[in-house]
Amino acid sequence: MTKKKFILKLTCLDKAGIVAHVTTELFHLEGIIINSDQFSDPDTGQFFMRIVFEIEDTVNIQKEIEKQLLPIFKTHEITWQLSDSEHKPSVLILCSKQEHCLNHLLSKHRSGGLNIDIKAIGSNHPLLEEVASWYKIPFHHLPITPNTKKQQELQIQKLVEDQKIDYIILARYMQILSPEFCDIYKGRIINIHHSFLPGFKGANPYRQAHERGVKIIGATAHFVTDDLDEGPIIAQETIRVGHEHSVNELTRYGADIEALVLARAVKQVSEYRVFIDKNKTVVFK
Amino acid sequence: MTKKKFILKLTCLDKAGIVAHVTTELFHLEGIIINSDQFSDPDTGQFFMRIVFEIEDTVNIQKEIEKQLLPIFKTHEITWQLSDSEHKPSVLILCSKQEHCLNHLLSKHRSGGLNIDIKAIGSNHPLLEEVASWYKIPFHHLPITPNTKKQQELQIQKLVEDQKIDYIILARYMQILSPEFCDIYKGRIINIHHSFLPGFKGANPYRQAHERGVKIIGATAHFVTDDLDEGPIIAQETIRVGHEHSVNELTRYGADIEALVLARAVKQVSEYRVFIDKNKTVVFK
Amino acid sequence: MTKKKFILKLTCLDKAGIVAHVTTELFHLEGIIINSDQFSDPDTGQFFMRIVFEIEDTVNIQKEIEKQLLPIFKTHEITWQLSDSEHKPSVLILCSKQEHCLNHLLSKHRSGGLNIDIKAIGSNHPLLEEVASWYKIPFHHLPITPNTKKQQELQIQKLVEDQKIDYIILARYMQILSPEFCDIYKGRIINIHHSFLPGFKGANPYRQAHERGVKIIGATAHFVTDDLDEGPIIAQETIRVGHEHSVNELTRYGADIEALVLARAVKQVSEYRVFIDKNKTVVFK
Amino acid sequence: MTKKKFILKLTCLDKAGIVAHVTTELFHLEGIIINSDQFSDPDTGQFFMRIVFEIEDTVNIQKEIEKQLLPIFKTHEITWQLSDSEHKPSVLILCSKQEHCLNHLLSKHRSGGLNIDIKAIGSNHPLLEEVASWYKIPFHHLPITPNTKKQQELQIQKLVEDQKIDYIILARYMQILSPEFCDIYKGRIINIHHSFLPGFKGANPYRQAHERGVKIIGATAHFVTDDLDEGPIIAQETIRVGHEHSVNELTRYGADIEALVLARAVKQVSEYRVFIDKNKTVVFK
Repeated sequence: MTKKKFILKLTCLDKAGIVAHVTTELFHLEGIIINSDQFSDPDTGQFFMRIVFEIEDTVNIQKEIEKQLLPIFKTHEITWQLSDSEHKPSVLILCSKQEHCLNHLLSKHRSGGLNIDIKAIGSNHPLLEEVASWYKIPFHHLPITPNTKKQQELQIQKLVEDQKIDYIILARYMQILSPEFCDIYKGRIINIHHSFLPGFKGANPYRQAHERGVKIIGATAHFVTDDLDEGPIIAQETIRVGHEHSVNELTRYGADIEALVLARAVKQVSEYRVFIDKNKTVVFK
Repeated sequence: MTKKKFILKLTCLDKAGIVAHVTTELFHLEGIIINSDQFSDPDTGQFFMRIVFEIEDTVNIQKEIEKQLLPIFKTHEITWQLSDSEHKPSVLILCSKQEHCLNHLLSKHRSGGLNIDIKAIGSNHPLLEEVASWYKIPFHHLPITPNTKKQQELQIQKLVEDQKIDYIILARYMQILSPEFCDIYKGRIINIHHSFLPGFKGANPYRQAHERGVKIIGATAHFVTDDLDEGPIIAQETIRVGHEHSVNELTRYGADIEALVLARAVKQVSEYRVFIDKNKTVVFK
Repeated sequence: MTKKKFILKLTCLDKAGIVAHVTTELFHLEGIIINSDQFSDPDTGQFFMRIVFEIEDTVNIQKEIEKQLLPIFKTHEITWQLSDSEHKPSVLILCSKQEHCLNHLLSKHRSGGLNIDIKAIGSNHPLLEEVASWYKIPFHHLPITPNTKKQQELQIQKLVEDQKIDYIILARYMQILSPEFCDIYKGRIINIHHSFLPGFKGANPYRQAHERGVKIIGATAHFVTDDLDEGPIIAQETIRVGHEHSVNELTRYGADIEALVLARAVKQVSEYRVFIDKNKTVVFK
Repeated sequence: MTKKKFILKLTCLDKAGIVAHVTTELFHLEGIIINSDQFSDPDTGQFFMRIVFEIEDTVNIQKEIEKQLLPIFKTHEITWQLSDSEHKPSVLILCSKQEHCLNHLLSKHRSGGLNIDIKAIGSNHPLLEEVASWYKIPFHHLPITPNTKKQQELQIQKLVEDQKIDYIILARYMQILSPEFCDIYKGRIINIHHSFLPGFKGANPYRQAHERGVKIIGATAHFVTDDLDEGPIIAQETIRVGHEHSVNELTRYGADIEALVLARAVKQVSEYRVFIDKNKTVVFK
């Protein structure tokens, strides 16, 4: 008999017995828990749990697990997501002219390091089409002007719906998405900001960093909300710099960690490790 | 009714149902799980779990919990430790002439940052007695010569037994403990080695690092075994250096991270976060 | 004949020949350059140089060097500082109730790791007097109320003048100095701010960091100006944190890097490595 | 009149006056020093200097500078290299089946982040030809068997001579070069080793790291000598890991820093910042 691995994410208001109830049901199903993480936020009273378990693979096994767990989910008003660990979330990558983040995602994906299914790449510029085509990912040129912003976002939206996209990844996509768009895909858009938020929000963070004379720069991957650069932070990284670095050099140094941090955030999300807890995230390692 | 917080550490050969059984018993006791971590080592087949839970505080509550859980512990041949989260492990710190690690531990302890009860400080040199006395910790001068090594270790042993010491912390204690001593206190002696192990074992690691021309140096806290510098690693840290740094400067830079890493390891052990898994550790954050 | 080591710091508007002129004069004095760093800021046009050189030790050697170099300094309108490398800048440390930064400075100083002469410790609270007295540094209790702020700062000023203090170090001194005081000691007051500036200025940065849900926290040492937390940054450090850390835990983790960063900044300043370049610093490693 | 920027590297036994003599000659040439670094190794008595200067661009300017400086170089027995800052060293990249290091180098190069001229890519496997061809770099398939090792190295040697290659970069090239080959190109072959040297030399360092249970892994870029993994270290980087990471996961995490560190070393070498000082390097930032 072969085994199948599932990942169960759940969240609800914290109360006694949830872990016991859920793990007991899994035991009844003869599931073996491989890994389990939980966190109870003392500020919000919210409980978060991620369980990885193995179970005998039968026809309809996923439906059976859901059937077994559903009463508990209902009783405790639990929000849950059960995923076959081999299922790859579908993503759309949006980019502009800079290739470093896109290229790192595609290269990591190609070598098997990212559990995602890249359905399409979109850009307001045609420049990176050759990168997309080399990696054999469909490329969509989605030009935008102040007057066509609404229509362009509708194009993106159509792409998302047609391709059943789970997550939109902004790999240095230089456009600000409309509040309406952000709202529709709340918790499903991942952006890389080229600073250590909350420092240096907005445009030209490397210039801002240079002007302030900081000795460390950073990059931040976060979920996009309609409040620019204020969405829940998923991952951050920093790197040491000095007075001798020009804005241009900060930009080059920063590019490396932008690419790393975005890929790390995408990896964590695609492995079902990330929960949104109001304006923060819970990320299980 | 007041609540009491307990920490349960357990380890056994991995099999289905352990999490369910344990958490169900805790539910029957009306315990509320605050945090829980687990790890199953695919190489050794060993399962490790740490659960933090709150429970109504009654007379003999700890004994009641143990009584309730004992059948499960027996059935699954579980090695366990149940600790009141406010209980502070007793420690003996051994040092020699250098004060940076000792001072950092004492200072962190004084400001409430370490969950330990420092029963005594021992040293083969009288130099740091004044540090101990200022922090109001009993100091034991334990001189040692090649001929008196055995007797000196018996003195330490007596101290450990008399004071019911849980952990012996080597804060740059420059003596090599005998294999017999290491054996008696296996898993209970924490050492700081002033290199990024396994690089630069043995004497003068900063000199070795300087001669090799490394661009990063490190420090390693580990449990002591009779195999020098080969015991299970608890924590490590690194710091960037350059060609311009002399051995003396490496020593000064390294001192900072030695002190940090040792304190971090002691903190983790004292919060019941560390398990020994053959020649490695499992450390729950 | 014994040798003496000097450090020459100089800054002026950049132009051709400065390095050649200065090093040629040193050559005529038979000085041997051990180390030399320079930086020309393309934004401000300002040139910065630090030269370490050895020279035969004779009576009045420092005056002779100055005499030899003075014409060049005048010609190029150079601001300069020539220091015997063994000369220790005098410092006054101001603190409040928290001891971690003070203790780390004093411990590092005691073990020879800081090239400073700690003339006095001042505090608005008597709590840390015992720390000062153990390290045998004169302690000054300088209580402050909203009504006595001016007088208290005059007391500090008197201390600075009487003791010929070069630098005032704020080791978690929780008072905001008046603009007048900041002005008098411009470029001579070093503060540690417990965040990665420019993020989380002002009060309670760890609470702010917790509320924002950052994945990394930091500490910043900077010169104090009358613009709060906006002075030239000398050194910064960051440390990784997660959703599981409470404000209290962030505070404890942060304490370690606050102490490290402040000591690093003090070390750099005391070794004549730091220049102020408008609102930034030039720090030679 | 346009300006041209040059970089002068020089090294010799340390003695008084070298900085003065060289900078005075540059002053006579009306060169403006933009940046200058120097280091005197107290262990070897060797002096190293790197000067970046701007000078009026005329026909044969480089020859004129050399003519002016040559007498000083001869007097002080100085080994020197004068380079137009826009001159890109020629490199040959050798790789095998893994693409992460190669791809990062090519992508960084494409976006202008590396001052090199990639003349050719060679590999003992045909797999990465498509990567090379996409980046439009000539690819040479250089198969190797134990019996053809000598011939294959002659093929590489021919490539190096024909293409006037300055540096050979081993981007996870899995072959051990013969001592003869290492000798011919001493100081001109840069390798990335996937561990924090001197820890875990030789094969399978991630497996070794996993077995030892380290809490940090690393990567090391170094010059190749005939003593395996013992050549002068150029750059290193580390990353935090835990008990939960399998060998496979360590390999993926490590891949990111391997790529970063190799690119950083190549950047430093190509900007004429790296000197070899016996078995170490001097790297000017």
